[in-house]
Amino acid sequence: MREFVRRIRHITYTSVFGLRVLFKWILFGTLTGLVVGAAATAFFYCLRFATDFHTAHPAVIFGLPLGGVLIVALYHFMKNDLGTNVILASIHKDEKIPGRMAPMIFIATFLTHFFGASAGREGAALQLGGSISAQLGKLLRVNPEDRHIVIMCGMSAGFSAIFGTPMASAIFAMEVISVGIMHYSALVPCVFASLIASIFSKSLGVISESFYVSIIPEFNVEHFIKMIFLSIFFGVLSAAFCLMLRGFGKFFTTYFKNSFIRVIVSSAIIIGLTLIVRSTDYMGAGIGIIERAFSEGARPEAFLLKMIFTSLALSSGFKGGEIVPSFFIGATFGSVVGPLIGLPMSLSAACGMLGVFCGATNCPITALLIGFELFGFQGMPYYLVAVSVSYMMSGYHGLYKEQKIVYSKYQTRFINRNPK
Amino acid sequence: MREFVRRIRHITYTSVFGLRVLFKWILFGTLTGLVVGAAATAFFYCLRFATDFHTAHPAVIFGLPLGGVLIVALYHFMKNDLGTNVILASIHKDEKIPGRMAPMIFIATFLTHFFGASAGREGAALQLGGSISAQLGKLLRVNPEDRHIVIMCGMSAGFSAIFGTPMASAIFAMEVISVGIMHYSALVPCVFASLIASIFSKSLGVISESFYVSIIPEFNVEHFIKMIFLSIFFGVLSAAFCLMLRGFGKFFTTYFKNSFIRVIVSSAIIIGLTLIVRSTDYMGAGIGIIERAFSEGARPEAFLLKMIFTSLALSSGFKGGEIVPSFFIGATFGSVVGPLIGLPMSLSAACGMLGVFCGATNCPITALLIGFELFGFQGMPYYLVAVSVSYMMSGYHGLYKEQKIVYSKYQTRFINRNPK
Repeated sequence: MREFVRRIRHITYTSVFGLRVLFKWILFGTLTGLVVGAAATAFFYCLRFATDFHTAHPAVIFGLPLGGVLIVALYHFMKNDLGTNVILASIHKDEKIPGRMAPMIFIATFLTHFFGASAGREGAALQLGGSISAQLGKLLRVNPEDRHIVIMCGMSAGFSAIFGTPMASAIFAMEVISVGIMHYSALVPCVFASLIASIFSKSLGVISESFYVSIIPEFNVEHFIKMIFLSIFFGVLSAAFCLMLRGFGKFFTTYFKNSFIRVIVSSAIIIGLTLIVRSTDYMGAGIGIIERAFSEGARPEAFLLKMIFTSLALSSGFKGGEIVPSFFIGATFGSVVGPLIGLPMSLSAACGMLGVFCGATNCPITALLIGFELFGFQGMPYYLVAVSVSYMMSGYHGLYKEQKIVYSKYQTRFINRNPK
Repeated sequence: MREFVRRIRHITYTSVFGLRVLFKWILFGTLTGLVVGAAATAFFYCLRFATDFHTAHPAVIFGLPLGGVLIVALYHFMKNDLGTNVILASIHKDEKIPGRMAPMIFIATFLTHFFGASAGREGAALQLGGSISAQLGKLLRVNPEDRHIVIMCGMSAGFSAIFGTPMASAIFAMEVISVGIMHYSALVPCVFASLIASIFSKSLGVISESFYVSIIPEFNVEHFIKMIFLSIFFGVLSAAFCLMLRGFGKFFTTYFKNSFIRVIVSSAIIIGLTLIVRSTDYMGAGIGIIERAFSEGARPEAFLLKMIFTSLALSSGFKGGEIVPSFFIGATFGSVVGPLIGLPMSLSAACGMLGVFCGATNCPITALLIGFELFGFQGMPYYLVAVSVSYMMSGYHGLYKEQKIVYSKYQTRFINRNPK
């Protein structure tokens, strides 16, 4: 009987404690969702203007050196920072996130897109969100021990507001920091921030992308094997993209010590290449090209050119993100190679997006969830194959060098290393 | 240029190494999927026979003491073991999984269901799968360092074949062992074992459950708040279920040292209770009652009685699993309480299933994925709320005392403790 009373008392205590923590995080998550959602919505509309402008006036690309110099000057005079890596490092190493990060990444990404350099925007949304929520946490005097959760909360909200995938965004913040560790203590704040930000930005007219996977064939042994084969390439492609980004970065810093000269040289190369390929497909994020890969297909060289254009831009000072470019690379590659081996084009493009994203970020769960949110649930077995195979094939490569790969990809061993 | 060659060589090396590991695990996963899938299919049909039998002849419940004695004798003479906990311990502590585990859990679960004691079957499927794949690994001389992956692979296949949720099953094996750590090195083997086992068992006529969520209201602030409110109870309920299981276990071992007497006493109580409640609803797994909770609703006391019946059975020697009972508890509770606060019945039942499962196993990702596989993707925001709130509210309780909660539920702190 005394045991029974003890247990009842115990569960009451757990519940009351749980309720207090729950309400704290629901409130903070909701607030973050609103504030970051508002900032990310403004960001969305600015980028849409930038995209519309360079689509209507492709000649703006000749202004690229100017845009580059402005960005480098901004980062030079406001003291340098490392972008998304600072956010990840703030969780591992307790590095402070400066408040100026949010406006800087906002302006720099806008300039990058305005002048048509190839870059994404989700990386910027992560930085914007993480930086704003860190300030919000300071302002509200959140317990310093909860700092990490506060930052993850903002990352989720930023990603969710821009991309309209609340579930994947909530999990992404928890999964991307340390591969193999899930920061579930951030589950409630990330979920609430993410849902609120997504509802909020939608109510202000932000339209999330959706890609239409038209044919999903029956999941049998033949299609199974074909998808494994295709996914091997997704994994290798994501590793190649990461290596190219690092390689270009190393090249630029070795041969052009001055960051202004570096961005001017790279702008010149980008302009030259744009004139050679006679296409504006590789300007900006290229969401239109991704959509076309689902319906009409893509040019066979598109994935390679996108890798080159993006690596040139992001390794020389332009800002944005690597995620939409990895979607672009995966979708265009998939839609070209899939049909060659008898898989439907839109399904191959979808699997390519998820596979290359997973290989480059080392986030298989997020990749799966993005799949459901963007393409629906029906193609699930194919997405599962694409994601798991690509995860293994991409090895220890990754977009974010501050990410920690905590457990081996091949054995149940603790390794705690950074990606190459 | 030399740098370029170095990078090309590097990526070639990664790819070749990745390909070797990939093919090893695809082969092993496929083999495990087939072997475990076959065993689990046989298990499925035996349990179906047992369920049909006790449904047609409810008087079989009077044989419960005999069934209990047989099970206890089996485990007594074959040396005792701890069930699902041994599987989890085999990953943490390198404990060996004995080969006799598979036939023992098969027979014991069959007897439990045949005589109508309240228990699930997925826990048994995990043990069956893990034990078979461990033997398979030994037979094929898989590198001893890969032992853990081999066991997870079998767990996935067993769960998937019985329950028909390949994606959730693959992730469950990686997520359940250590809360906060995702054993992604097992991703490819688990995914392949899971997919193959599910295809195989389906081809042999195993029909997976599916529950029909009829009305999914628009996700607005009102429904959002109501679902938070409901999910708080799911979390508390799952903690209460875990505490009751432990409490009854402690009671029995304290007052009845002899395990034969223990199972006879508990059988007598179960028979008495069955006569008092005048219902066969709490015999066996009770999938029918779960289904009814979605369409017609449930009796208000059903969830509590199921907790009592299951705790009596599983804490005194009967075998099976705790997962279907937690689905039962969540679904019946949800379908009763949800409509009281204006949420649709089937949606509340679905969220109850996921919420109580998540709180009791501490596996939020698996809970979400089970939701998509059983109910479809449309109710996603509700499932996300139910799962995340219940995860936080259930505190450090859990069904499996060998599970490790590696990171705090409330802060980003390493705690590495066992659940209460």
